[in-house]
Amino acid sequence: MLSAYRLREEPYYRPVGDEVGLFAAAAAARLPMILKGPTGSGKTRLLEHMAWRLGRPLVTVACHEDMSAADLVGRWLLEPAGTVWQDGPLTRAVRHGAICYLDEVVEARQDTLVAIHPLTDSRRMLPLERTGEVVRAHPDFLLCVSYNPGYQAAQKDLKESTKQRFGALAFGYPDPAREAEIVAHEAGVEAALAARLVRVGAASRALVAEGLAEGASTRMLIQAGRLIAAGIGFVPACTLAVATPLTDDPALRDALAALLDAQATG
Amino acid sequence: MLSAYRLREEPYYRPVGDEVGLFAAAAAARLPMILKGPTGSGKTRLLEHMAWRLGRPLVTVACHEDMSAADLVGRWLLEPAGTVWQDGPLTRAVRHGAICYLDEVVEARQDTLVAIHPLTDSRRMLPLERTGEVVRAHPDFLLCVSYNPGYQAAQKDLKESTKQRFGALAFGYPDPAREAEIVAHEAGVEAALAARLVRVGAASRALVAEGLAEGASTRMLIQAGRLIAAGIGFVPACTLAVATPLTDDPALRDALAALLDAQATG
Amino acid sequence: MLSAYRLREEPYYRPVGDEVGLFAAAAAARLPMILKGPTGSGKTRLLEHMAWRLGRPLVTVACHEDMSAADLVGRWLLEPAGTVWQDGPLTRAVRHGAICYLDEVVEARQDTLVAIHPLTDSRRMLPLERTGEVVRAHPDFLLCVSYNPGYQAAQKDLKESTKQRFGALAFGYPDPAREAEIVAHEAGVEAALAARLVRVGAASRALVAEGLAEGASTRMLIQAGRLIAAGIGFVPACTLAVATPLTDDPALRDALAALLDAQATG
Amino acid sequence: MLSAYRLREEPYYRPVGDEVGLFAAAAAARLPMILKGPTGSGKTRLLEHMAWRLGRPLVTVACHEDMSAADLVGRWLLEPAGTVWQDGPLTRAVRHGAICYLDEVVEARQDTLVAIHPLTDSRRMLPLERTGEVVRAHPDFLLCVSYNPGYQAAQKDLKESTKQRFGALAFGYPDPAREAEIVAHEAGVEAALAARLVRVGAASRALVAEGLAEGASTRMLIQAGRLIAAGIGFVPACTLAVATPLTDDPALRDALAALLDAQATG
Amino acid sequence: MLSAYRLREEPYYRPVGDEVGLFAAAAAARLPMILKGPTGSGKTRLLEHMAWRLGRPLVTVACHEDMSAADLVGRWLLEPAGTVWQDGPLTRAVRHGAICYLDEVVEARQDTLVAIHPLTDSRRMLPLERTGEVVRAHPDFLLCVSYNPGYQAAQKDLKESTKQRFGALAFGYPDPAREAEIVAHEAGVEAALAARLVRVGAASRALVAEGLAEGASTRMLIQAGRLIAAGIGFVPACTLAVATPLTDDPALRDALAALLDAQATG
Amino acid sequence: MLSAYRLREEPYYRPVGDEVGLFAAAAAARLPMILKGPTGSGKTRLLEHMAWRLGRPLVTVACHEDMSAADLVGRWLLEPAGTVWQDGPLTRAVRHGAICYLDEVVEARQDTLVAIHPLTDSRRMLPLERTGEVVRAHPDFLLCVSYNPGYQAAQKDLKESTKQRFGALAFGYPDPAREAEIVAHEAGVEAALAARLVRVGAASRALVAEGLAEGASTRMLIQAGRLIAAGIGFVPACTLAVATPLTDDPALRDALAALLDAQATG
Repeated sequence: MLSAYRLREEPYYRPVGDEVGLFAAAAAARLPMILKGPTGSGKTRLLEHMAWRLGRPLVTVACHEDMSAADLVGRWLLEPAGTVWQDGPLTRAVRHGAICYLDEVVEARQDTLVAIHPLTDSRRMLPLERTGEVVRAHPDFLLCVSYNPGYQAAQKDLKESTKQRFGALAFGYPDPAREAEIVAHEAGVEAALAARLVRVGAASRALVAEGLAEGASTRMLIQAGRLIAAGIGFVPACTLAVATPLTDDPALRDALAALLDAQATG
Repeated sequence: MLSAYRLREEPYYRPVGDEVGLFAAAAAARLPMILKGPTGSGKTRLLEHMAWRLGRPLVTVACHEDMSAADLVGRWLLEPAGTVWQDGPLTRAVRHGAICYLDEVVEARQDTLVAIHPLTDSRRMLPLERTGEVVRAHPDFLLCVSYNPGYQAAQKDLKESTKQRFGALAFGYPDPAREAEIVAHEAGVEAALAARLVRVGAASRALVAEGLAEGASTRMLIQAGRLIAAGIGFVPACTLAVATPLTDDPALRDALAALLDAQATG
Repeated sequence: MLSAYRLREEPYYRPVGDEVGLFAAAAAARLPMILKGPTGSGKTRLLEHMAWRLGRPLVTVACHEDMSAADLVGRWLLEPAGTVWQDGPLTRAVRHGAICYLDEVVEARQDTLVAIHPLTDSRRMLPLERTGEVVRAHPDFLLCVSYNPGYQAAQKDLKESTKQRFGALAFGYPDPAREAEIVAHEAGVEAALAARLVRVGAASRALVAEGLAEGASTRMLIQAGRLIAAGIGFVPACTLAVATPLTDDPALRDALAALLDAQATG
Repeated sequence: MLSAYRLREEPYYRPVGDEVGLFAAAAAARLPMILKGPTGSGKTRLLEHMAWRLGRPLVTVACHEDMSAADLVGRWLLEPAGTVWQDGPLTRAVRHGAICYLDEVVEARQDTLVAIHPLTDSRRMLPLERTGEVVRAHPDFLLCVSYNPGYQAAQKDLKESTKQRFGALAFGYPDPAREAEIVAHEAGVEAALAARLVRVGAASRALVAEGLAEGASTRMLIQAGRLIAAGIGFVPACTLAVATPLTDDPALRDALAALLDAQATG
Repeated sequence: MLSAYRLREEPYYRPVGDEVGLFAAAAAARLPMILKGPTGSGKTRLLEHMAWRLGRPLVTVACHEDMSAADLVGRWLLEPAGTVWQDGPLTRAVRHGAICYLDEVVEARQDTLVAIHPLTDSRRMLPLERTGEVVRAHPDFLLCVSYNPGYQAAQKDLKESTKQRFGALAFGYPDPAREAEIVAHEAGVEAALAARLVRVGAASRALVAEGLAEGASTRMLIQAGRLIAAGIGFVPACTLAVATPLTDDPALRDALAALLDAQATG
Repeated sequence: MLSAYRLREEPYYRPVGDEVGLFAAAAAARLPMILKGPTGSGKTRLLEHMAWRLGRPLVTVACHEDMSAADLVGRWLLEPAGTVWQDGPLTRAVRHGAICYLDEVVEARQDTLVAIHPLTDSRRMLPLERTGEVVRAHPDFLLCVSYNPGYQAAQKDLKESTKQRFGALAFGYPDPAREAEIVAHEAGVEAALAARLVRVGAASRALVAEGLAEGASTRMLIQAGRLIAAGIGFVPACTLAVATPLTDDPALRDALAALLDAQATG
């Protein structure tokens, strides 16, 4: 079951602290987990790593405000033989012992969040109100959610009664040496270039104080590195992969351009 | 009927006052009940205890603002032989004599709340307007609702005409000795550690005056205890299970860290 | 027809003034009626009494803002032989000569309210726009609506063109002697205890000036009386059945507690 | 066709001015008509009279904000032989030559109002967009709409491009002598009593300056008259049929009571 | 195809300037067109004239805010043999070479407006996303939209990316001599009376400065002329056909009455 | 597959800088792309050019706020043999290796934007939550989105977690010589006339400082050129194709008229 959700190869993951051990202990205690941190800080990567390590399928659901409880839990379909129930991604994970990952959970509506309550206390069950069935969670089932505290609006927050059902790990950007190691490995570039890209990233994060919504993620630096590896120049590659996506504001665009020029010559 | 909703083993419950006797008297008088109190203060536990004690199934519905009356009462399904009515969780409880528990009832829309009115006065009936059937309540049927007065918004309150149909019990945090007893029993840790965890909980509740939305529930303390029992250190376990889930505010995060350090060495 | 909606036994009703005669005259003139008054002041009881007295079924619909005209009038259902029309509660009452009672009518949307217009003038007909049928009202059909002027929001009011189609009766709390008589009869308690409960009710109603949303209804006093009759003490019974449901405000909770203590010793 | 919508007997109508001749000329010119005026000022009565006089069925639709274009024009129904189109009330009137009366048209949404545009210019056609059919209007088809300018909110007004497709007649309250004649005829009471009721009506209309939303309509006075004819006293009958429905404001209620007392003794 | 949408007789049209030649050139260049101008200024008439002249069917859609893209493009219907696609009015026009006229286009929602984008650039195609079909436009297909800049709210405007896909013609009221000619021809009245009616129209348009929403259209003057031709007096005919529909404001009503009196005697 | 989405002839494209090379490198790196710039600045043209050059089908979806995730991903249809899944345009592109172009992506709701997340990181997969299938992207699949930063409202912006998954190219108006070359080629007019049209465009863009929402696009200038080539005069052609569509403001209309007069004589 759920073989499409099993990782085919070991995902690259470079630990920052004791997060692997803590996550494993929480999983053993069946404690649902919140992963918090900025875009591209490695939340999804840790989960992929843990899914591989624990040998469990990983069912990811990108949350959004139009997602209904039925999108998670399941719905009735009309078949020639009548209406047939179809499990949603959460129900499949609950039945078959996957890690269910609700990405950007604060985007979801309240009905999503309360639907998971009976799965997060000692009951570990999912009542399918539309069928009358009560699904007892598989022992391997684990619920994880993520959000970015940086741009989480006041009106989009987890309810206290939801938060208190979870443990949590907080993520930040990796330190420069570790980030350069990741960029070099993922983009296939040499260490010096990776270090220059990491300096671009750090400088862009400093622009948050000037009004930039968010600095460049490690992912953006890797994308720039790949374009450079394919023969594009440093400035055009970083403009395309980092500066232009980040902002439409003329002053910030100029600041980012200056910052690229500063690294252009290594 | 409703065997999936019968408790399989006696739930652990540590009474705080005369709530068991009062609830039993209200149940005997068929008085619908409101349970009020903060997250994790034992409202659900009391209900599970009473369901076990009274030998009745417990049908729990987590309320949310997208829940319609049909989600409670039932709906028509299209089957090969035509449309077939399917009872919702409330109707099943009414017919077969269960306790129906509407958790966080103030989250529900008005149609949910008025749908229960004919069940809460001398009529004790549920008119299924979509079928024309009038279901008379089973003698064992009991309606219970809960909410948390602490973070209940002004616009989310029970209507007066709803409130006046119910009796109510108010819950608070247990006193330190009793809370330590619960933490020790549930987490499987010794009394001294449980007492340290309870001091963490009390200190976190004092931070509400500093802007924390809600202090740590007994449930959070139990979760921290379990991680410690599994070999995680006191501070990392409490950080993961208590401090990180509770807040994203830097000042409050520092205050929680200080508070953990204060208990770290017992 | 509508036998499920016929009262099985004569409901207890203690008249306050000439409301029985006035209602009977309005019913004879086929004048639709508004019943106004606070929660638990006897509006539903009068209607049950009149339904029994006039020998007509009573079809009650609890109004709410998600109720559509289809919930009142009827809808198409898909059956093996095709779509089949199913009368809603209003249409059943119109066809078969019941009293149709729209409880808390100001909660309903405009489409509910205008759907009843052709039933409330000389036409006395209900056009089923979705079938093309025009249902002429049975001679015994009577339309009644109720609302509570006390907490009726400005934006939730009957339209003038609706109001002017109705007669109206206004309800208040019964005077102390009559209320004590009702409490004693309904709760099965003796006169002295009933008088103490009635003093609790009157004192709670005086707290409206201090910010309480609404004072205790007669129904609440009866519920307290029943618990006392079952062996619960005066203060715990009144706390559970009156004070705790009424408010979450600490000052009002203290005022209610003081008021119970004042009556605790008779 | 549409026989259910033909009037069975000649409706009583007491003309106020030349409105019968003007309406007949507009109908002959196929000019769609707006009838404006307060509640109960005779708009519906004139239409019933003209429908009888012109020998045409009268299809009345009470407009509301939840009414969709499909409610007017028609919809697809699922039948054993597949989906079948069912004409709505407007389409039936257009095909078979009825007067279609949209009561309180400003309550309807824009889609209702623009759906009638092609019927109100030289095209006189109704495109059924959901079937692809274009229905040419029967020569006897006439469109009439009504609204009450008195409590028509700014945001609920006909669009200019709609207004300019219509002629219009304005209605007010009848003068005292004519109103007394109507009340006496309709309620079956003698002239002196009718005159007293008409004075109650006029006095209530003067209270609009004091904040009353709208004065008593002629209809309300007739309802009071009928109760008096059935044996109820003057003051209780007028209280039930006029004063209590009109307001919940204590000061206005007292003013209405004083006004009834003034007429109580003739 | 689309024969129901072909004009049966040549529509009367009195050109104001070179609009016929300009429109013909735009049609030859397949340039989509916007027609702008006040109510009744001849936008629809020009289109009917051009449809007749170019020998193309004219499919008119009155836009409104509840119109969905499916109302324009088409939808799936359930038939005995399964679901069957039914083209909407736009798709029919695209396939068979009609002029598709979206009347009051700014009332439509964004999904309507972007659905037409691929039809208005060099692609001239309509992707039916719900079927997967891509309909290439018939060479004779022409898209026209209209709106009234006078009462077009700020939040209801075409998007720049939509506007820039269109050419546009602006319409105003005809000059007095030409308007009198139109009124005389359409209402069947003599020149002197037509001139008086045209003076009424001009005077009403001057009242816009006093707060009138919009002056009388040529259409209104024609309607008044027809009533006069049928024997109604000048003032009652203009009151019914012009003054009463235009306003409910007492001061403006008086101003319109004075203006009618001034023309009453020729 | 997707042959309807293959371009039939090579689209004309005049490069502005190194955008063709950069886009090709990004496509080779499978980096999703954002194209930013004003209306008619060549975003769509570049994409058509690249689709032709790379030999891939181009599936364009015009985004709007009523577009649901189902419109992109697919939906269940009822067929005689039961419900059948139908891929949406995104899913077709993912399966068969097309470029999927989401035009004006900021108009789309959040559910559209998060639905594309798993396609834009190393997973390159599209989970069809309604079927349970996980579609792995074809190696040729490429995702492109566009928006206009000029009139993009604050509340309509890409989320940071979306932006950081893309590379981006920014577009502006071409310089005068290049724009004249494009206009001459596309409209079939000679260089001198094209230069005059380009001066009209530049002058209109300068009016943005005076309050014009957006200046004339190159597309508008081409449309004016085509009308002139068909025999319409310079001023009437530019009025119809440029000035009248651009604004309803009298002052801006006069400014545009003056600007046309200035170029009228070459």
